[in-house]
Parts: sequence; C-alpha cells; structure tokens
Amino acid sequence: MRIIRMDEKTKKNLLDDLLKRSPNNYDSYTASVNEIINTVKNKGNQAVFEYTKQFDKAEISEENIKVTNVEIEEAYRLVDQSLIDVMRKALLNIKSYHEKQRQYSWFDSTPNGTILGQKVTPLEKVGVYVPGGKAVYPSSVLMNIIPAKVAGVSKIVMTTPPDKDGKVNPNTLVAAKEAGADEIYKVGGAQAIAALAFGTESIPKVDKIVGPGNIYVALAKKSVYGYVNIDSIAGPSEILVIADETANPRFVAADLLSQAEHDELASAILVTTSEELAEKVSREVEQFVSNLSRKEILEKSLENYGYILLVKELEEAISVANEIASEHLEIVTKDPFTVMTKIKNAGAIFIGEYSSEPLGDYFAGPNHVLPTNGTAKFFSPLGVDDFIKKSSIISYSREALEPIHKDIIQFAEAEQLTAHANSIKVRFE
Amino acid sequence: MRIIRMDEKTKKNLLDDLLKRSPNNYDSYTASVNEIINTVKNKGNQAVFEYTKQFDKAEISEENIKVTNVEIEEAYRLVDQSLIDVMRKALLNIKSYHEKQRQYSWFDSTPNGTILGQKVTPLEKVGVYVPGGKAVYPSSVLMNIIPAKVAGVSKIVMTTPPDKDGKVNPNTLVAAKEAGADEIYKVGGAQAIAALAFGTESIPKVDKIVGPGNIYVALAKKSVYGYVNIDSIAGPSEILVIADETANPRFVAADLLSQAEHDELASAILVTTSEELAEKVSREVEQFVSNLSRKEILEKSLENYGYILLVKELEEAISVANEIASEHLEIVTKDPFTVMTKIKNAGAIFIGEYSSEPLGDYFAGPNHVLPTNGTAKFFSPLGVDDFIKKSSIISYSREALEPIHKDIIQFAEAEQLTAHANSIKVRFE
Repeated sequence: MRIIRMDEKTKKNLLDDLLKRSPNNYDSYTASVNEIINTVKNKGNQAVFEYTKQFDKAEISEENIKVTNVEIEEAYRLVDQSLIDVMRKALLNIKSYHEKQRQYSWFDSTPNGTILGQKVTPLEKVGVYVPGGKAVYPSSVLMNIIPAKVAGVSKIVMTTPPDKDGKVNPNTLVAAKEAGADEIYKVGGAQAIAALAFGTESIPKVDKIVGPGNIYVALAKKSVYGYVNIDSIAGPSEILVIADETANPRFVAADLLSQAEHDELASAILVTTSEELAEKVSREVEQFVSNLSRKEILEKSLENYGYILLVKELEEAISVANEIASEHLEIVTKDPFTVMTKIKNAGAIFIGEYSSEPLGDYFAGPNHVLPTNGTAKFFSPLGVDDFIKKSSIISYSREALEPIHKDIIQFAEAEQLTAHANSIKVRFE
Repeated sequence: MRIIRMDEKTKKNLLDDLLKRSPNNYDSYTASVNEIINTVKNKGNQAVFEYTKQFDKAEISEENIKVTNVEIEEAYRLVDQSLIDVMRKALLNIKSYHEKQRQYSWFDSTPNGTILGQKVTPLEKVGVYVPGGKAVYPSSVLMNIIPAKVAGVSKIVMTTPPDKDGKVNPNTLVAAKEAGADEIYKVGGAQAIAALAFGTESIPKVDKIVGPGNIYVALAKKSVYGYVNIDSIAGPSEILVIADETANPRFVAADLLSQAEHDELASAILVTTSEELAEKVSREVEQFVSNLSRKEILEKSLENYGYILLVKELEEAISVANEIASEHLEIVTKDPFTVMTKIKNAGAIFIGEYSSEPLGDYFAGPNHVLPTNGTAKFFSPLGVDDFIKKSSIISYSREALEPIHKDIIQFAEAEQLTAHANSIKVRFE
C-alpha cells in the first residue's frame, strides 16, 4: 500500500479524488432512469413486467410477482440452520440498539392554558430495496427492515430483482422474514423504485424508500424524492483508520482490507503518526491480499483509493478524518475516547483494537447503513429516526391568546398578510 | 365557498387536484436550473454576478455581495422599533420551543467491556435561503435560523436576492441579525443555491441548505441534494379545519382565509359534520373576502382549492385529514384532544377555538416551516433535528468480542466477504 507524507496539496488531491466516486456524478444515466420512472408511473404493472424481462431476463406476471409463503418456506429449507441462528442473534442486537433510538411525543404546558408539543408518528408504509445479482447481503436486509419495524411502520414492502428463473435468493428471503417484511415483490432497478413511489396494480405506493442499489437505483431514488421520502443516496464503502504507534499493524491491515474488498471504488485509508506502523501495515496488507479470495477487487481498490497517510500530530489525523468524513472510522490510539470527542464527521466510530469494522457490519447492533462519500458531514446512520415523522401541537386558551394577540396582528400586518391579522382580530371583537 | 358532500369520487378528485400543485411537477424548468447550477459551479462569482444582473437587475461585485455591518445598522434605523420588539418576543418563544427539541448523545455499556452509543453533532455550516421580491417574511427568517442556532451550527450563511439598487429589505436584515445569521450575501434564485452547494470565491460551501423559494429555488435544491443536504421542498400553503357543530363559524372562516391569502395555489379546506356550520362558514367567508386587502388572491385560491366538505361522521373527517396530510390542521370540535390522537399526518396541529393558525405562524414557538402537499406523511416540521447529525459509537473489548467472533466470521463468509471474516479471525489467531 502506498505511503504518503501528508501536506496540503496531497490532502486536496485526495479529497477531490474521493469525491469523484459520488453517485451524483453519473448524470448521464438520468435520462434513461427518468424514462423508466415515467413509463412505470403511466403503465404500472405492464411496464414493470417488461423491464424485468429486459433487465433481469425473468418472466414476471401478476401471478408470481409477489413472493408467496410457499416460496419463503422453501427458502428456509435451503438456508443452513446455523446461519439462521446467527442471523437471529444479530437481529436481537440490532433490535436492542434501535429500540434505544426511539423518540417520544412530548408536550409542555403553562397554567394559563397553553400546550405546546411534538407528536411522533411512525410512517405508515415503507419500501425497502434489496439488490440482487452476485452480491447478496442478508445483513443489509436486517439493517434496513429492523429500524422500520422498531419505529412501528405498519407495512414494510420489500422489492428485490428475481434471477432469470423468477426466484429470489433464499438468504434474502429468510432475512426478510426474520426481520419482519410484510410483502416482498420480485422487481429490481429503477422500475422497482418507480413502482414503490407511484404504486402499480400489484405493488403498493409507499411513503419512503430505503435501501442500497446500483447507479440506476440511486438516481431513481433521487428522482422520486419529494413524491416520497428516501434515505440518503449510498456511494462506495469506505474505512478510515486513525492509529498511533500503539496499534497492532496486523489488525489495522485486516480492517483496511475488510472495506477495500467491497468493490473497486471502495476506499481504505490509514492516517498515522507512526512511520513504523505505516510500513508494517503496508507489508501486512500485501501479505493478506495474496491470500484472500477477493484479491482482484482488493488490488484495484487499493490502487485506486487506498492510502497510508503519514502525519506529524494526532490533531492533524483528526482534522483529515473530519474533512474526509468517512463512512467507517476506527480509532486505534493510546487514548481513543479522547480522540472520539474531537470527531465531528463519521458514519460509525469504532473505538479500540477489538472494535473491528465487521463487528459493526454484522453484529454489534448499530446500523451498517451509513453515510458515504463525505455525506457524514450532514447525513446520519439509518435508524428509527428515518421511519418516524413529527407534527407540532399548538393549543392556546383565550386567556393565553389575549395578552399577545396585538403582537401577532402587528407582525402579520408588517408582512402585509391582512387575512392572517384578521383571524386573530375576530377572536377579540 | 363551495360546499360538497363527501363521497369516494369527490375524495379522489380532490386528492388528485391538490397534488397537481406539487413543485415536483415542474420538470420543464429543470434544464435551465441545471444550466445555472453548472455555470456557478464552474465559474463561481463571475456567474453569480452575471445571473444577478440578468434576473435581479442588480450590479453585484466582490465588493458589495456581502451585507456589511453598516447596512445592518441602517436597516435597524428603517424598521419600526415596535416591530423589532414584537420580533424579539416571538424569537424568545421560538427559541424556547426549539430548545426542547434538542437531542443528546447517549451510550449504553455492559460490564464485559462493550460500549454502544450515538453521538450527536451539529452541522458545521448551514445556508439559509430567504426570498426577496414583494413578499418579505421576516417571520420565516426567524423560523429558519433559530433552530440552526439552537442546534449549535457554527456558521449560518444567509442569501437573499437584492433589489435593483443592490439593497436587501431592512425587515429581512433585522430579523436575520436578531436570529443570529453570521454572514449575509446578496444573491437569490438557483444561482444562490448553487453558490451555497459548491462555494464561490465569496460565498462559503455549506453542508445543508434550508429555506423557501420559487420553483427555480425548489428545483435547484433538489438538484444539489446529495452534494449537500436540503430541507424538504416547499409547496403552496394549506389549511384543513376539522369542525363540528360546536365551532364558531366566524373564527373558522377567518382561519381558512388566513392561508388562502398566501397565493393562488394555496388551499383552504373545512371538513365538517355540521351542515349548519358549513353554510354559516361559507357566508362568513364571502363577507370577509370583500373587505380584505388580498381579495383577488383570496377569490382565486378559494375557486381553485377552497372546499367545504360535508361528512357524516367525525371519523370520516379524520380519515380525509389523514389522506390530505395538510400542512396546517385545526381541530375545532367538542373533544379536540381525542381527535388529535387519531391524526397521523399533519405538519402542525392547532387544537381548540383560540388556537388560530397565525398564532403558530408568528408567535407560539413551533416552527412554521412545515411539510406541504401531502408530504406530512413522511416529512416533519423544520427543527433542531435538521441541523444535527449522528454517528454510531462501537467499542468492544477482547472479552466481549471473543464469544461472538465465530458468529461474525460465519455471517461474513455466508456473504462471501472473506476479508471481513479475516479481520475478525486475525484477532484470535
């Protein structure tokens, strides 16, 4: 792995480079995505079936678009019982963490008859997109569905592309059933997003669509934003490790690779104050790569977006981490909790040498759907917050309104909104 | 005002009709908005100055784009002191309400060395867009800036279009200063949104852009979503009143008009179980309209989107309200708090006959930036939540990781992510 001494120019080039991976840069696909969306919006099921035939080579109809209980039972027979047991253990941890994220309605009152508050209501219907193809991640199914379930969503509608025989991967189905999906439809791509946003004869319109997907799915989600809500738009995976001379180079190297293996755009960055650690990690990485099954992807993603950055001070490492705003951040230093207090931007923060990133991907409980590509500056991990919304509550008595009514009238009149002023006036005629 | 007996057909037509007002339907402007965005992204200040000359007829340069302290002092001299006093009273209420929305970092630990938590961090830089032109709303300036300030945002950058003399409305400037804007720039339209999203030589890039605007501003915000975060896309204003025979028809009529006066697309709907109330409200509306200054707008918006809907049961009124998901909902019935418990979708809920909608617009404290056009099904009022983001915290000891490490390895291997599995393995070699 390349080792670079950090300076301002390196930092700027690196930041520019990482941002190139943004799914926002693929505007050239927008026209075809919008065509798919409009066709599904206008023609419903018929368009969904045609696109599924075109893109997934599968014959889907009204009769088989919805996954049946029989298909789910079959999936349970195909999945190793010990994997189901692991999923169930993970599910309990994920549920337990997300239950702590619950928000409650509240109000505040004063004795003259004012009540102000905030009412929390779960979304009614949510769509969860699950990618198909080679990379099947039942852990993502759990991570997308469980927070919706904990929030109290009434109907969770999952869509996932079928293979050419019209089947869905059994691991996906088992994870969906365990997590609590209410309905599962065999449709993928932009056509699935359009179906969820506008509804078809078979697929219900939902209030919000979550879940990762390829560039078509990402652009389709952005396009329907406003008609429905969406989660943040996912980019390639990332890990940034802040480490000093106390870190175990073998652990750091293995963790860098755990994200680099996702795809060729994935980024793995170590920022360290220790030249010795830098060199050891670089060597460990080379050794691991040649023995790992995803060697080719690893080599490419390390070449593209893998860096070991040498800095003089820990403060500089923290500053780089805040600027990159990595999806995953590991802190492996002498005093990691103090470093954590200085982190402003990161999706998930892993503290200490046993908090390996895959622990968070699969098991600890916090969500693994995290803001990527610098968006941790303004987006949060997927969570219960994504599946609730709030309404303000305002109740005033006559006694409470009377002393302030002239202020309101004055403010409204200053904005030339005379009917606003009138509605207060009529109450004190 | 027209009175219609509610049936399924009426409901469907009404819902379709209301949705036509969505800013999402104006895709025809997208190309010109994207051109403005790209030009500002590539040419920075120069493009900003040229567009400001083209659209606002104002000569803006590096020297005068930023509002100076002298200009703010001048604004204070131009604004009536009693209006400033009213603004300050409103500001205290808005601040007090939003302080109750604060969220705190939390963690949970177990004695074997696991710490899981969620760290809350304010966004660093936020852009607030404030429209110019005829409709100047200092109350909106307060409502957009105060929650950011309460959240702890370090830098609040406001932009607003100048008039042709290069000046900004003094009410806007005073409200901005009172609320705590850090920097104010004289630029409006899609060019302002682009400048905030990508930065120029004069205007800093921000993490999130909030604030209402015309269709160009709305589409520009949607277009830059992902590069930065945005608030929800605002549509025309709405009020829905649920009332029974106990309601005061004069109050109800005045409140319907308070929203109908905003613009010709605004919607004002009464849903009532009482035919007598329906007729009385209709008469009161006619009387008020002829005496109000915004008569022409009122007549058009009532003709377009004003309805009195007669229903048989209160439950039916509640169901209609939930389907329309109105920005503002007033409940004026015998037992309004019980009705409130059944409301799923509304931006703000006003309870009882003295809780007139403009009380919420100006004074009570909850935000008046609310989801419109059915989006209350999935969006929330603007609030402190919009100006914070979260990072997950994961810390495991060796003792905590050891008993579950084989589960994680199995799950990772089931997903064929062998480098993920490896990172756990190396810790127990």
